[in-house]
Amino acid sequence: MKRSPPPRRRRPTSQPIISLLTDFGSTDHYVGVMKGVISALCPSARIIDLCHEVRPQAILDGAFLLWASYRYFPAGTVFLAVIDPGVGTDRKILVVKTRRHLLVAPDNGVLDFVLSEEPACRIYELDTPRIEALRRGGVLPAQHANTFDGRDVFAPLAAKLAMGARPSRLGRPATRRVSGLTLAHPDRKPTEGLVVHVDRFGNVVSNLRAEEGTALPGRLDGVELKGKKVTRWVRNYLEAPRDEVCILVGSSGLVELSVRDGSAAGALNARAGDAIGFLWRS
Amino acid sequence: MKRSPPPRRRRPTSQPIISLLTDFGSTDHYVGVMKGVISALCPSARIIDLCHEVRPQAILDGAFLLWASYRYFPAGTVFLAVIDPGVGTDRKILVVKTRRHLLVAPDNGVLDFVLSEEPACRIYELDTPRIEALRRGGVLPAQHANTFDGRDVFAPLAAKLAMGARPSRLGRPATRRVSGLTLAHPDRKPTEGLVVHVDRFGNVVSNLRAEEGTALPGRLDGVELKGKKVTRWVRNYLEAPRDEVCILVGSSGLVELSVRDGSAAGALNARAGDAIGFLWRS
Amino acid sequence: MKRSPPPRRRRPTSQPIISLLTDFGSTDHYVGVMKGVISALCPSARIIDLCHEVRPQAILDGAFLLWASYRYFPAGTVFLAVIDPGVGTDRKILVVKTRRHLLVAPDNGVLDFVLSEEPACRIYELDTPRIEALRRGGVLPAQHANTFDGRDVFAPLAAKLAMGARPSRLGRPATRRVSGLTLAHPDRKPTEGLVVHVDRFGNVVSNLRAEEGTALPGRLDGVELKGKKVTRWVRNYLEAPRDEVCILVGSSGLVELSVRDGSAAGALNARAGDAIGFLWRS
Repeated sequence: MKRSPPPRRRRPTSQPIISLLTDFGSTDHYVGVMKGVISALCPSARIIDLCHEVRPQAILDGAFLLWASYRYFPAGTVFLAVIDPGVGTDRKILVVKTRRHLLVAPDNGVLDFVLSEEPACRIYELDTPRIEALRRGGVLPAQHANTFDGRDVFAPLAAKLAMGARPSRLGRPATRRVSGLTLAHPDRKPTEGLVVHVDRFGNVVSNLRAEEGTALPGRLDGVELKGKKVTRWVRNYLEAPRDEVCILVGSSGLVELSVRDGSAAGALNARAGDAIGFLWRS
Repeated sequence: MKRSPPPRRRRPTSQPIISLLTDFGSTDHYVGVMKGVISALCPSARIIDLCHEVRPQAILDGAFLLWASYRYFPAGTVFLAVIDPGVGTDRKILVVKTRRHLLVAPDNGVLDFVLSEEPACRIYELDTPRIEALRRGGVLPAQHANTFDGRDVFAPLAAKLAMGARPSRLGRPATRRVSGLTLAHPDRKPTEGLVVHVDRFGNVVSNLRAEEGTALPGRLDGVELKGKKVTRWVRNYLEAPRDEVCILVGSSGLVELSVRDGSAAGALNARAGDAIGFLWRS
Repeated sequence: MKRSPPPRRRRPTSQPIISLLTDFGSTDHYVGVMKGVISALCPSARIIDLCHEVRPQAILDGAFLLWASYRYFPAGTVFLAVIDPGVGTDRKILVVKTRRHLLVAPDNGVLDFVLSEEPACRIYELDTPRIEALRRGGVLPAQHANTFDGRDVFAPLAAKLAMGARPSRLGRPATRRVSGLTLAHPDRKPTEGLVVHVDRFGNVVSNLRAEEGTALPGRLDGVELKGKKVTRWVRNYLEAPRDEVCILVGSSGLVELSVRDGSAAGALNARAGDAIGFLWRS
């Protein structure tokens, strides 16, 4: 990591994008206030909502949604993920710089899927003394509450990064975390995995990747979830017979379960975090 | 349709507006990812959410929401309507150019109400071979899933149009569809219609237009829905007595049913798609 | 109020922010249409959603959300609050100019908390004849419905203000309202207050301010709500023992009730508008 003085700032894009992922929902002012703070500190920022209806404190869902989305955003996008059950404690904050993007989030696993995808990323961490030093230095607002770091810490950090602040000026270099949450690769033929997300349509998303060229449907016989086996592969939702749970490779490249015009999650009583078994052709 | 070479592109507005209507809801990353794709291809685009809480696959609701909204948007706005139960099949995609706007949607009826309003529009269609040709030509991204055309086809098309691409370069000219979904005009004194939408407040919107100057309240005695007759006309929600379903001309210019401080849909057990009878003064 | 001719307009910011607060929800086109109208009249406006899931006609919630948010937005932001049970009647509309912001809303109390915070603000009011005069003068659109002033009156007013129109050109100067809704100051040791909001996480927000330096936890023994006393103070959500309702100073600077990993509102069966008693140390 270079520390030689100029240039002190990355050249910012003229209208940087900040993409927001939170569990703040839509019935309060929390997301709106974060946008106000960002707009005050980075007037040219364009803010894109990734999702705010992550179930409260559902780190796994957040990790999936971020991973499934970030590659589609333009280079230079700053992602801010505030799913933060540890707000008010001494949990650290991470700033991650990948080849194309910047990400800011609490150090609780919500970045794990992205980190596993980005071996060459640089990680910076902010602990509580560092956050307090940034407050004293005027980088973060002096006024702050104990319960709303989204407004008082995260939004200002994202705005500063969007304005061109170097991550190394905000946090200290950190080494890669051993990731608790991982996506599974078919070449390793994992037998156990988990449900990482259930979407609006009741599709059940597993953590098993279906890499291009792995011809997964010919190798994976099916999956087992809550004691039920699912073995019928389809290519899209309409190929499926009604009322039968089917397997397909979903739009994120993960193995999904789906029911045509129905809810696989409902049929299987499945939710994010459930264990799932992968049945490989022997 | 002119095919003479320059100019190959409409002059794009400096910050084109793309307005999004989907049934993707707010609990997933689907809408956020579409915005990422649009921002990557058309960095100056300003994205306005029209609605994402259309009930899954509810084409009728989508057609109403689009029709009731599009005229209020500035000239040059690109509307993208992704309510697409046929994703993954050979259904076509339409690009429609009206005097003031552009619209992109699957060819499934979601554009019907707008098409019926715009006799002079031009319609272009993209079938599956055309979409594949656009992929080979680099107009659409080569990588794509079978289940998320919103990300892989629709968002790129809208971004290209916002960048000034000519619709005729994307699709083939097509003739007007005979519309399955239509709005009814009072001069024809239709006796049968349908509920096109139920809003958050429980207002029940019919497909009967109340043209200016038609003095509808003096000509339409009432409506019949689920066996119940409604005959009391009011001008606004507060004129209505409590606990009685009333008729009024709603903000979209359609005949609506409403209960003051209550839900007409609840009182009548009504939902989009229900048949409704119009009772004309003889 | 100066009426000397030039300059007739405040100097508008290049990309003015308009922040929207409504009870229109997310299942209809109402918010989207307002954004279309704003974009047509003020093409450079950047629109930030404050909240649209205010319970229908819940003026108290709206007043709280606006008050808790507005100070975090950049100078020049125009706030538009459309929680308007009186739409279609002769209720007035207020335009308020504080030191840093502009606010537009129906004259029904939704601005009360902000007004109580801004002794030096200027208030302008628009009655029905004034609105009709603005229509004849082309300031507001001639076409309008009886039931959607958000589209036909409020959005155009906010857009005009964002374009630099002087409030005094839109409304008539008015004097401060005696506010029905007020926040309570600890120095007055109020014994009765009310719940102003329940958030997504079930936190119950009271109208009692915890000013800096008042050392409230040492002076307020607790609160009483629905016959239950709550006396355990914590500094943040994680300090609280599970399954016990606790008191803390929330992120807005008001006294809140909270249950760790649970819902204080659920435990106490509390909702906005409920009476709350403050128990002071004698």
